[in-house]
Amino acid sequence: MQNIGIIGLGSMGYGIARNLINAGHRVWGHDINQAAIDRLVVEGAETGIFREHAVNFDALVVVVLNADQTQEVLFGETGIASSLHNNTVIVSCATIPPDIAVQMETRAEKEGLLYLDAPISGGAIRASSGELTVMASGRKAAFDAAKPVLDAISAKVFDMGDHAGAGSAMKATNQMLAGIHIASMAEAITFALAQGIAPARFFEVVSQSAGTSWILENRAPHIVEGDYTPHSTINIWPKDLGIVMDIAKTTGFSAPITEAALALFKTAVEKGLGFEDDAALAKLYADTAGLHLPEKQ
Amino acid sequence: MQNIGIIGLGSMGYGIARNLINAGHRVWGHDINQAAIDRLVVEGAETGIFREHAVNFDALVVVVLNADQTQEVLFGETGIASSLHNNTVIVSCATIPPDIAVQMETRAEKEGLLYLDAPISGGAIRASSGELTVMASGRKAAFDAAKPVLDAISAKVFDMGDHAGAGSAMKATNQMLAGIHIASMAEAITFALAQGIAPARFFEVVSQSAGTSWILENRAPHIVEGDYTPHSTINIWPKDLGIVMDIAKTTGFSAPITEAALALFKTAVEKGLGFEDDAALAKLYADTAGLHLPEKQ
Repeated sequence: MQNIGIIGLGSMGYGIARNLINAGHRVWGHDINQAAIDRLVVEGAETGIFREHAVNFDALVVVVLNADQTQEVLFGETGIASSLHNNTVIVSCATIPPDIAVQMETRAEKEGLLYLDAPISGGAIRASSGELTVMASGRKAAFDAAKPVLDAISAKVFDMGDHAGAGSAMKATNQMLAGIHIASMAEAITFALAQGIAPARFFEVVSQSAGTSWILENRAPHIVEGDYTPHSTINIWPKDLGIVMDIAKTTGFSAPITEAALALFKTAVEKGLGFEDDAALAKLYADTAGLHLPEKQ
Repeated sequence: MQNIGIIGLGSMGYGIARNLINAGHRVWGHDINQAAIDRLVVEGAETGIFREHAVNFDALVVVVLNADQTQEVLFGETGIASSLHNNTVIVSCATIPPDIAVQMETRAEKEGLLYLDAPISGGAIRASSGELTVMASGRKAAFDAAKPVLDAISAKVFDMGDHAGAGSAMKATNQMLAGIHIASMAEAITFALAQGIAPARFFEVVSQSAGTSWILENRAPHIVEGDYTPHSTINIWPKDLGIVMDIAKTTGFSAPITEAALALFKTAVEKGLGFEDDAALAKLYADTAGLHLPEKQ
């Protein structure tokens, strides 16, 4: 049994926290939303002032939105890192630029802490069931110290190497493909509709053909059913594909497909679709082409 | 047992012809390459002058490269359509623009023939094993007449409707996704390599993650192994994605992801990669970024 702090109790973080509790650990939750903290206490989390207990944490899991928030909660003016004891492991789960992960590892190590670059994949449902995929990198000591956390929250951990950055690079690559495949699915399902092929028929045929992808099989049903309840929002993509394009520009790598997909997600945000499920990118195409997508029954 | 003519004995057509023979039909083969015809005779095809036997065909299967060739062999100056008897079914297997399929159906019906818009998917291996996927559309009489052919060559027939064009539209949509997914795979595997992630590791992680696609699982191993033996060539894609963009332009449909992928394939052809396996699109990215892809062992 370990003492574990977790910052960020959104759809991913809350599921992670519950699985840490269910695995028998003592868990302290923190979030800007007090209601989420209180709800977690009902589910068995510890009470008390987060910062006061931080000195006893064996691990601190950070599941905030992006790099800025991760840096702020750890190393900002009121950052928690200064309250942790030596050799506490920081498990950083947000999708962030690899170079920021490297900087945070260096900073953590200077303060006597361990750092695991551990972006997560799998969505809220698998966060809730403790079956996330983690693309992790860091020192062996960081992996060892994070093992109780990883065991409780994930079905699969890819060990990407012995320094921070590699995990984030792998995550960025996976997001790059996932984001492009959302865009290609949206482009193709509306292209088919423009030819008179209904989305349900498109899905039936393509999911059994060479054009299929994990994303298509996961997201196209949202369009078929006209249900854009956000499982993963449009808003995520300008950030995640933006990370990819930032890396690409820095390293002189040309990524025209990613660039085209990023432009579409940005336009969708401008059109007010940001908080909808990312399958709603199809609405952008449908609106442009004057097509009618299925509506929710 | 039927009398079946087949025009086009390339990697797809030859496999189809063999399966028609193996199913017990009398098969006459035709190709601009006499050696392919002779080889098929060794495997059990009938001999004699193709045109002289055409009047006895129950079905004529056309497996040439594109719309121009299909129109030429059927309705050109020396086209075979005029030699067929009433109600022979033409099974048109090339990937062609839907409007050309509509024109050919009209022309065929004027001459008392049946026409099935029947583009095929699955590659040379499944053509050889009789397990193609067919995205077909046409009159009920055309489907009925083509049934012995379809039964012998395919594992799955999607009935897209009662007129030519719908099968070709579905095929174009599937190709659109497959082509984009080749490009996204090539972009991502080299992006990862630029971050120090080897192609084999990329493949291991992504094939188990949200970024995977049928194409990625099928083509990325070619890059991992450095083996660009052409199963499906780069040259196919300017044609097939060109069909998609032609349809898009005609119908006022905006398809920026397809457009970006098409531009990459065209550049790859200009760089002399046209006759390589389509996974060789990764070479274009690698060359631009100064990366070294795995070489064949």
